[in-house]
Amino acid sequence: MLDRYSLLKDYRGPLDLKYMDYSQLAQLADEVRDYIIEVTAKNGGHVAPGLGVVELTIALLRVFDPPKDVIVWDIGHQAYPWKILTDRKEQFPTLRQYGGISGFLRRDESPYDAFGAGHSSTSISAALGFRVAKDLMEKEGYVVAVIGDGAMTAGMAFEALNNAGHIRPNKFIVILNDNEMSISPNVGAISTYLSRIISGSFVQETRQKIKKLLEHLGTPALRVVKLTEEFLKGLISPGVLFEELGFNYIGPVNGHDLVSLERTLENVKAIEGPVLLHVYTKKGKGYHPAENDPVTWHGVAPYKRESGEFVKKPSPPTWTSVFGKAIVELAEMDPKVVVITPAMKEGSGLVEFAKRFPQRFFDVGIAEQHACTFAGGLAAEGMKPVACYYSTFLQRAYDQVIHDIALQKLHVVFAIDRAGLVGDDGPTHHGVFDLSYLRCVPNMVVCAPKDEQELRDLLYTGLQYNGPFAVRYPRGPAYGVPTEGFRNIPIGSWEILVEGEDCVILAVGYTVYQAVKASEELRKEGVRACVVNARFVKPMDHTLLLQLARQYDLFITVEDNTVVGGFGSGVLEFFAQHGITKRVVLLGVPDTFVEHGNQNLLRDLVGISAEGIKRGVLSALRRVV
Amino acid sequence: MLDRYSLLKDYRGPLDLKYMDYSQLAQLADEVRDYIIEVTAKNGGHVAPGLGVVELTIALLRVFDPPKDVIVWDIGHQAYPWKILTDRKEQFPTLRQYGGISGFLRRDESPYDAFGAGHSSTSISAALGFRVAKDLMEKEGYVVAVIGDGAMTAGMAFEALNNAGHIRPNKFIVILNDNEMSISPNVGAISTYLSRIISGSFVQETRQKIKKLLEHLGTPALRVVKLTEEFLKGLISPGVLFEELGFNYIGPVNGHDLVSLERTLENVKAIEGPVLLHVYTKKGKGYHPAENDPVTWHGVAPYKRESGEFVKKPSPPTWTSVFGKAIVELAEMDPKVVVITPAMKEGSGLVEFAKRFPQRFFDVGIAEQHACTFAGGLAAEGMKPVACYYSTFLQRAYDQVIHDIALQKLHVVFAIDRAGLVGDDGPTHHGVFDLSYLRCVPNMVVCAPKDEQELRDLLYTGLQYNGPFAVRYPRGPAYGVPTEGFRNIPIGSWEILVEGEDCVILAVGYTVYQAVKASEELRKEGVRACVVNARFVKPMDHTLLLQLARQYDLFITVEDNTVVGGFGSGVLEFFAQHGITKRVVLLGVPDTFVEHGNQNLLRDLVGISAEGIKRGVLSALRRVV
Repeated sequence: MLDRYSLLKDYRGPLDLKYMDYSQLAQLADEVRDYIIEVTAKNGGHVAPGLGVVELTIALLRVFDPPKDVIVWDIGHQAYPWKILTDRKEQFPTLRQYGGISGFLRRDESPYDAFGAGHSSTSISAALGFRVAKDLMEKEGYVVAVIGDGAMTAGMAFEALNNAGHIRPNKFIVILNDNEMSISPNVGAISTYLSRIISGSFVQETRQKIKKLLEHLGTPALRVVKLTEEFLKGLISPGVLFEELGFNYIGPVNGHDLVSLERTLENVKAIEGPVLLHVYTKKGKGYHPAENDPVTWHGVAPYKRESGEFVKKPSPPTWTSVFGKAIVELAEMDPKVVVITPAMKEGSGLVEFAKRFPQRFFDVGIAEQHACTFAGGLAAEGMKPVACYYSTFLQRAYDQVIHDIALQKLHVVFAIDRAGLVGDDGPTHHGVFDLSYLRCVPNMVVCAPKDEQELRDLLYTGLQYNGPFAVRYPRGPAYGVPTEGFRNIPIGSWEILVEGEDCVILAVGYTVYQAVKASEELRKEGVRACVVNARFVKPMDHTLLLQLARQYDLFITVEDNTVVGGFGSGVLEFFAQHGITKRVVLLGVPDTFVEHGNQNLLRDLVGISAEGIKRGVLSALRRVV
Repeated sequence: MLDRYSLLKDYRGPLDLKYMDYSQLAQLADEVRDYIIEVTAKNGGHVAPGLGVVELTIALLRVFDPPKDVIVWDIGHQAYPWKILTDRKEQFPTLRQYGGISGFLRRDESPYDAFGAGHSSTSISAALGFRVAKDLMEKEGYVVAVIGDGAMTAGMAFEALNNAGHIRPNKFIVILNDNEMSISPNVGAISTYLSRIISGSFVQETRQKIKKLLEHLGTPALRVVKLTEEFLKGLISPGVLFEELGFNYIGPVNGHDLVSLERTLENVKAIEGPVLLHVYTKKGKGYHPAENDPVTWHGVAPYKRESGEFVKKPSPPTWTSVFGKAIVELAEMDPKVVVITPAMKEGSGLVEFAKRFPQRFFDVGIAEQHACTFAGGLAAEGMKPVACYYSTFLQRAYDQVIHDIALQKLHVVFAIDRAGLVGDDGPTHHGVFDLSYLRCVPNMVVCAPKDEQELRDLLYTGLQYNGPFAVRYPRGPAYGVPTEGFRNIPIGSWEILVEGEDCVILAVGYTVYQAVKASEELRKEGVRACVVNARFVKPMDHTLLLQLARQYDLFITVEDNTVVGGFGSGVLEFFAQHGITKRVVLLGVPDTFVEHGNQNLLRDLVGISAEGIKRGVLSALRRVV
């Protein structure tokens, strides 16, 4: 595959970069872009972020000397050029495939990946850790964090800046890769501030004008200049905000101009104290479809390279789009419904809602903690906030869920997308802990729909209910069930979907239809399993569960969540509490981090597909007999 | 009790304040301070924070009109004057007593408590929620958040400022109550920045000098002034950092000068867009011992009013102090040991460590997220970081524990203080979820010591181990066991402490000795219970558990954690996995938020004291028979 890339095919590693001239480097940059496009067109993946940092990657590898110098990339979805140009150009075609290389950074993949990532805004904290450790152990080397402007809105990045500005280490460089958008176009005051710097409209022009005027004024004015020199230096810096936090601000620098990028980096190496280098880049640089629509091209499914058309297999609408449609309808019915997202407008299916109800839509930027408590304030004053999270990102707001929402029994509906195994994005993104970490929180209602209609009904139910309510649903296509209207579902109620005498399968959310399919297959082998849609994980259907306990001896629980502390444990706890000793088999995600790979492949591997459930039931029956 | 307070005894509520003159208000302020001192001397509680904001509270109640105007106090430990002067002066003597009023804010305690608190840095987010909701519903009223300078270092506060600066609502005021310390003296770049503002040394003097010089220069200079007017206004504001985030910065104002405080607040009401009002106050104001040592007097046990001496009952050293001593010894043995705390130096017993190893001690401020990933970076470069958290605050770093530490199997030792029921601080502070939310994270080792020596041994074990390791221990006095040296405890090993045939008690951490006591009492009634120290919650002692399963039919698990997804559930999961159907009774914290009150009273109430365990065992035996 590499044969057609004339420079890249013989490229051996970062050292080669130091011997290339700028025209060769320009060609190499082109080839890296082509290669990224070729592979992602086939595999899907994050396209625009990586294309935007090809020159920056080359500059870092030429000016610094990793792994001795530590380069920490934030999130890691922009690190494809890094993977190619450090030590993974051969494996790059296996990107995001099961058993292949990860779409993010991983310490166990390469010594160049200093710190793994996937979630945003962790790079400055980790880099500061490296820096301090190197200083304590008197190890050589620079430490560099590369963070996007979107990631900079997260509180964690600010905490790290604040701490670094206090410690004031040397050889510590934060590169702010500013492409004026996180995944969605960026929001928040910081974003406005950065735009003003890059446009230069305000600060730089004014500084010039003052300088000129003062020159005209002659000697007395020079006294002013002298007096204010230090003052102006500190305060008229475009990066005054970072300067106030103790950083030396340098920039903005064009991140696609390799020559000036390198020169600046070389200069920065000599500066005492922590440096914030502000680089501006274009997301999707070099591939027109991605340049023109970087939001869509942030992360994509396979596509046709020439046209940029997506290779979509016809499939049922996704859970996300079903949610997006439902929330618009619900907002039409109730003017108190408002929606909050921490920078996931597109990913959470909220584009239509934002268009239809701009006054009731709040994209707070990458700020999961704030999003949750902001929703709490809205609820306390009488609105009906729906807080939209990916399951894995809700982990960022765990304390707020407990302390601000559940403890106060506030009526916030958590719409939790990407629950369960998400597939290609892998272990940083699987939403397989939410049932466990939410179930142990008092006052929470936690549920999961078996299909599209039930997602609508549970949302509706949540908006009628008065208290903390979490509904979680998976990534990807739903089951293609037709939808209409909304129904209130009694809180804590389950439903029997299939009758059967031999055992009972209690399934949650996505796994319910898989259990039904499994029961059909089992029937062919003479096993008659009852299947229950355990749509409420908390509270459970106590009446039904007691009734089932009188009828059955073998229970199989199924969930797309870890089996540690999840739904199955809830069933065990209930039985223990009622002195019921039954054989219960827990099917679900095992107690390990599951790798990346095709979503259905992973589901099958952990045994929660129809086939997996069938296997699980048969093995359980064999053991009981 | 109120009789001796001549103004306060007849005080009916906030409306009264509006009819008092300033000399009366000054007397009232004195009386409020006296009353706080009288009650906290008896009950203990947060002394210094409340004493610092008496005038601010009066000003807020005179200038604003709550509950129509919403006042959101951050954390709530400074809200004693608020409680007294709104509607709880009569109940104030029940402060922090079981059944009495809370030491923090609670929506269910008073309509004046707009938003409950306990953890820091939530106020701006919640206030913004109120503000937006009021605007959407066209409700009247101002919204005010009062936040300390310490709380301002938390990322969550920054996320909220960033979002508020973007939304730019009117009638939205953030009061920065700057007393130059959070609980410990404040750290971080923000803190340095605020000190520079208050001292006025830099910005204000320079501004004056420029102005004067320009005046001397005459007409041409006036052109400069005119040209730069807007510019200077924006950039030479001492609060430039907040201005850049979209706030109007006003201040600093002396927070003990009621007249100017009120005048400023009145002016601020008329300003368009969000306002940050910078107020400086003295923590502990009006009570000399607290003024002189506000760190000690942040939150205290009962004390003698006149001398400020603490009424200490002789008791064994606290778990905290045992940890503090052990970590110094461990650091002496291994130069790679470093300690990180998010603003809990005193609370976590780290004063001695900080003194002995200043280069290896990192107080990162209130920044739980950063603290965790910073530790991750330190570990990745080869240090042995011990990250010290209170159990309840570790919830703030949950995603970082999963994504940055556990997923990468980094060797970070989490020393988790205040696990279990903490007592007087109540539901915002109980550490009763950690076993559940940590147990479901792959790669984690989770353990709890039965006594002081085992705390030392587990810390030592954690530092020898190479991976994520969490040891949790309670607030308050330990058991008084003599300590010496360190022993490595095999990971996942349990120990049988008491032999017995009738049933087996598997107890964790604090509850182990309680279980031993219970077994002694049970023996008097003819019941012979085996007691096991289940010091590792993850991994468990599989060999021993299988062996016990062959011997016993009744298992009682005991933990000072919620019974939902906790240790007991782990035992149930293990049995389920091995096809073992045994009667298991789970003793622990029930699935509700437990109120505040004496720690041992609460332990008894939920049934994890010796007496409670005895009751639990007898009731289980009765049910089995």
